[in-house]
Amino acid sequence: MNVETMISLVLASGLLALAYAFARARWIGRQSAGTEKMVEIAGYIADGARAFLRREYRVLAAFVALVAVFLALVNRSADTSWLIAVSFAAGALASGLAGFIGMTVATRANVRTANAARTGLAPALNVAFSGGLVMGLSVVGLGVLGLGGLFLAYHAAGWEAARIIHVIAGFSLGASSIALFARVGGGIYTKAADVGADLAGKVYEGIPEDDPRNPATIADNVGDNVGDVAGMGADLFESFVGSIISAMVLGAVFADAFVAAGTGELNAVTLPLVLAGVGVLVSVLGSMAVRVREGGNPQKSLNIGQFGASGLMAALAYFVIRWMLPARWETAGVEYTSLGVFIAVAIGLLAGVSIGLVTEYYTSTQSRPAHGIAHQSVTGSATNIIAGLGVGMFSTGLPAVILALAILGSYHFAGLYGLAVAAVGMLSVTGIQLAVDAYGPISDNAGGIAEMSGLPEEVRARTDKLDAVGNTTAAIGKGFAIGSAALTALALFAAFKQQAQVPSIDVSDPRILSGLLLGAMLPYVFSAMAMGAVGRAAGDMILEVGRQFREISGLREGEARADHTRCVDISTKAAIREMVAPGLLAIAAPVVVGFIDKSMLGGLLAGVLVSGVLFAIFQANAGGAWDNAKKLIEGNISIDGTMYGKGSDAHKASVVGDTVGDPLKDTSGPSLNILIKLIAVVALVIAPLIA
Amino acid sequence: MNVETMISLVLASGLLALAYAFARARWIGRQSAGTEKMVEIAGYIADGARAFLRREYRVLAAFVALVAVFLALVNRSADTSWLIAVSFAAGALASGLAGFIGMTVATRANVRTANAARTGLAPALNVAFSGGLVMGLSVVGLGVLGLGGLFLAYHAAGWEAARIIHVIAGFSLGASSIALFARVGGGIYTKAADVGADLAGKVYEGIPEDDPRNPATIADNVGDNVGDVAGMGADLFESFVGSIISAMVLGAVFADAFVAAGTGELNAVTLPLVLAGVGVLVSVLGSMAVRVREGGNPQKSLNIGQFGASGLMAALAYFVIRWMLPARWETAGVEYTSLGVFIAVAIGLLAGVSIGLVTEYYTSTQSRPAHGIAHQSVTGSATNIIAGLGVGMFSTGLPAVILALAILGSYHFAGLYGLAVAAVGMLSVTGIQLAVDAYGPISDNAGGIAEMSGLPEEVRARTDKLDAVGNTTAAIGKGFAIGSAALTALALFAAFKQQAQVPSIDVSDPRILSGLLLGAMLPYVFSAMAMGAVGRAAGDMILEVGRQFREISGLREGEARADHTRCVDISTKAAIREMVAPGLLAIAAPVVVGFIDKSMLGGLLAGVLVSGVLFAIFQANAGGAWDNAKKLIEGNISIDGTMYGKGSDAHKASVVGDTVGDPLKDTSGPSLNILIKLIAVVALVIAPLIA
Repeated sequence: MNVETMISLVLASGLLALAYAFARARWIGRQSAGTEKMVEIAGYIADGARAFLRREYRVLAAFVALVAVFLALVNRSADTSWLIAVSFAAGALASGLAGFIGMTVATRANVRTANAARTGLAPALNVAFSGGLVMGLSVVGLGVLGLGGLFLAYHAAGWEAARIIHVIAGFSLGASSIALFARVGGGIYTKAADVGADLAGKVYEGIPEDDPRNPATIADNVGDNVGDVAGMGADLFESFVGSIISAMVLGAVFADAFVAAGTGELNAVTLPLVLAGVGVLVSVLGSMAVRVREGGNPQKSLNIGQFGASGLMAALAYFVIRWMLPARWETAGVEYTSLGVFIAVAIGLLAGVSIGLVTEYYTSTQSRPAHGIAHQSVTGSATNIIAGLGVGMFSTGLPAVILALAILGSYHFAGLYGLAVAAVGMLSVTGIQLAVDAYGPISDNAGGIAEMSGLPEEVRARTDKLDAVGNTTAAIGKGFAIGSAALTALALFAAFKQQAQVPSIDVSDPRILSGLLLGAMLPYVFSAMAMGAVGRAAGDMILEVGRQFREISGLREGEARADHTRCVDISTKAAIREMVAPGLLAIAAPVVVGFIDKSMLGGLLAGVLVSGVLFAIFQANAGGAWDNAKKLIEGNISIDGTMYGKGSDAHKASVVGDTVGDPLKDTSGPSLNILIKLIAVVALVIAPLIA
Repeated sequence: MNVETMISLVLASGLLALAYAFARARWIGRQSAGTEKMVEIAGYIADGARAFLRREYRVLAAFVALVAVFLALVNRSADTSWLIAVSFAAGALASGLAGFIGMTVATRANVRTANAARTGLAPALNVAFSGGLVMGLSVVGLGVLGLGGLFLAYHAAGWEAARIIHVIAGFSLGASSIALFARVGGGIYTKAADVGADLAGKVYEGIPEDDPRNPATIADNVGDNVGDVAGMGADLFESFVGSIISAMVLGAVFADAFVAAGTGELNAVTLPLVLAGVGVLVSVLGSMAVRVREGGNPQKSLNIGQFGASGLMAALAYFVIRWMLPARWETAGVEYTSLGVFIAVAIGLLAGVSIGLVTEYYTSTQSRPAHGIAHQSVTGSATNIIAGLGVGMFSTGLPAVILALAILGSYHFAGLYGLAVAAVGMLSVTGIQLAVDAYGPISDNAGGIAEMSGLPEEVRARTDKLDAVGNTTAAIGKGFAIGSAALTALALFAAFKQQAQVPSIDVSDPRILSGLLLGAMLPYVFSAMAMGAVGRAAGDMILEVGRQFREISGLREGEARADHTRCVDISTKAAIREMVAPGLLAIAAPVVVGFIDKSMLGGLLAGVLVSGVLFAIFQANAGGAWDNAKKLIEGNISIDGTMYGKGSDAHKASVVGDTVGDPLKDTSGPSLNILIKLIAVVALVIAPLIA
């Protein structure tokens, strides 16, 4: 099969995913949104989300235009520069579009999930999961369409592979730029609103934190969509695209050997795209398996979809790889086999699932760590915090070992290319993985809407059941996002080294060690910036809530309406203002260091990678464990013979831990995924300039 | 001057330091210990400290004997093996002896400082500083005596330099082993007692935390001596010795060039020892400048001693280096100059001072970070914790830049040797640096004794003034300890690479990247172990305090005596029991990885180094800033127009931050200094086996 046909099939899979997503979105739209009150509240949330997108996209458009012009002009002698700029804009557009579709549908699915929960658990799960699936399929569909489309276009122009890949790397940079805004900005937005709403209830007495009279609650619900749906989507879009591109870069070296073996010259370059296309189809199939009977266990149903998809993907990958690659070949004196490449892909899939399960262990209400924190809450906030920090630190152990084994294993079986295809393997099921992730915040929103609209107890009980499952899937999703970011950054790192022609990145060379040290420091400073931003924005939110309660007469009595839009506006402005500094840091650091010394940039990349991954896992798991320790106590728990529940001192201590964990697990921690990938992508794009 | 004469002079400087320390210790002993009550309380503390030392040294003796036998037998074919074992035992003995002397004198100086404070500030400062000086001079004195003595002995046996240095590396391993026990065990001891005493007061109502009836208070005071005096001493002893040895290893390559230049063949090997000897004398001179007039500023006086010593050291180093090294020489195609070596030493001195000052900025009550945390305490514990974590994260930025510049600069001017002598330069003033550090806990103890003995207000006011200065010097000392650990580990790393004949530690090689990732993970797991140990031991302490109040009738009324020894025993046992697991991790990790693959061990070392340094700075500075934010509020502070002081909600929130910060800044954070050095030393010692 020639390259054009192969890529056309990949494009078809992308179109199919989008069509299926469109059908599901239409189906969601046809469901009833329930009572007038429900429609009103959902309207506020949807308006807020749209307001954020509008403002964010205005800033983004300016930023993308600026960077595109810069990319086109920076190296005018190369005729490819303006095409890099075009690829960059396409990447930004695709990521932005996926975010727009996902968030729009999520803000429709939330209220319809709440309404479906009035009849039963099964229909509610169906709506919530469908909402998440639209996000997941939009991401992978637009990802393969964008990459495949550009590849096909440049290939049709008769370009050689190296040149095509160099230009397409711009697509990844575009995706990263949007991811930076969406993940960092979204993270700041959601936690500014959340922490602000919580503390406003504390500072100004008489305003319960979840009360519809509290003007910040709508912003809080908008935040779930902005941060956990759109932010997570942009994050995984970047990983998905980045892993494919780096595998394409690293596959280019096999061309001669493939010609000699009688296989398609570019098959190692197109394999990542084909695997991604197969993954898209597998995700659609997997999503069809997610069905729950009334009274059934939603977790089980989601697991069948997710693990089933991973298993099916592994099986199909075997045949695709056997079909596309020679059984064995030699390049630069090293022997490769198609079986080895398959094993690398399987290792990636397995590592993704394993890291997710470890994350679940450390954060779940079922296992020891969260129980330990709940126990330590009895002696107060301080011991609760110490215990949570300890859990977060300890939880880095196994994921580090899993990643190290995945790196060693995939490299052993297929060299640097193996490393990159392991990342592709892990991310091939992104479609269903993201569906399961985004299902969480939709269920969370549904619960909030049910509460605020005064729906009966049993409805809330059903959405709570969905939400509890959502917490677990969110934890797994975070682990997956970090793990995939690590492997993607690693693959980009390998691609960078090749493109920049760095002979060796020897850490015993002081320049490289300095780079390593500076790189390892960046995640700390970046996290501090994100945390500081949340603190400042939450402070503004508290002041605004106080102002409204003072100035809007009748608000406290529930007779006047709170001005939600002002709070939404504060979160929006803060998110967009505050993401500039960390964003500049992430973009400037590799450029400055790279032009000083390309080997030092290599050290910087390695430092950001290892330090960022560990610091992100630490933050995400500490936050998740604190959250669930609080939930354990809220569900009444017996500790050393005494019962503790809502309102107990132990509960108060656990609330402190949960509030501390919020920005760690939802703002600074996940932002590090972007940091490590963005720095690697920037390095890859400037690689030919510093080579 | 021949080698023997030169080393003899170094030995003389060590003897002089010990003699001067002995004289000061005698002088302290001659001061009055005050009232009967004071003597009684001080007696409990001294007994507790001795009890800990006895038990610790018993375990240590067994451990040292075991390792010595192992070292002697592991490579029986080499005739040097048993001499490595002897060197190892000597290093352990020297470190243990320094700790014994320092702690014994500190537990005498504390009560005498309290008594001197009854007459004035100046005499109190004099006693406290003298107590610290004994520790400082014992460390550097025994350090140069041990290293110089072994060198002289082996040299007299007619050995060549490479062989001597290989054997002497065992001395460093001995020092590291004691440091592990002293720092990790001491850190666990002190915070188990501190947190346990605090929480016991909270859990069992009616037992104020600082009350002499609380059986855990004595253990708390013992902890200051065990952790902050002996632990810090062992930590710096290890850095001091490690930096000298790695510079000796790296200086051996210049022998041929020196012979050609007509200079002493071994001058580059002996220079680190000579610089250390000069530093010992400079410390003695600097200590003489520490004098305060009544009503004067103790901080200023300590600064004159410390910065004056650094300046003098730089000046003397210039002449020593000009005298010992050729003006210029060439080795392996690279040109070196004596001026370059001097600049490297000066860079080390400057970096040490700079990192200390940055640490002071981030933790001082005078500057913005602590004020920011105090402000955030108004909205509760959660915002206090978030703010403190943010300060800790942000504070890693400048030290990382300073270290990177120091690495780049010293390497630029004198290659790998420059890197190692920069560490020697930084540590050359360890004598006075440690005196200033150990002065803090002595003043702290003096304040506690004054309080418990019911001395008049004004006495407590004077010890508080000394203690406040002590907090600042402690922060600077912590920064210095981390910075010097980093440079020492780096120098050891360079020495390891040479000894193990690792051609390249290229992080783009997946084996090495895996090592890097695993290495970067170790500080997290190690810290989690240390924090968990504190939590468990504090829990035991709380139970014991409760038991005593239940079972000893009359204790609550102040009529019966609390059984302090039981609490001291709990802390002691816990410290010794709990340091085993992290200790094994630190020793086993490099051995296991090293025998799998020596390059992977190189990656592991680099990972532990950068991740450990940053995580240690994060923990130390977050802890210090929380501590001083609490102090700010306790001193009454106006925030947004409202006054907050002791007992306010803001104060309660700040106490939570302080308690969380305690194990971070005094147990897990400082333990990482040992981790990064110990792993590097173990790697260096096994280097010839895996070469």
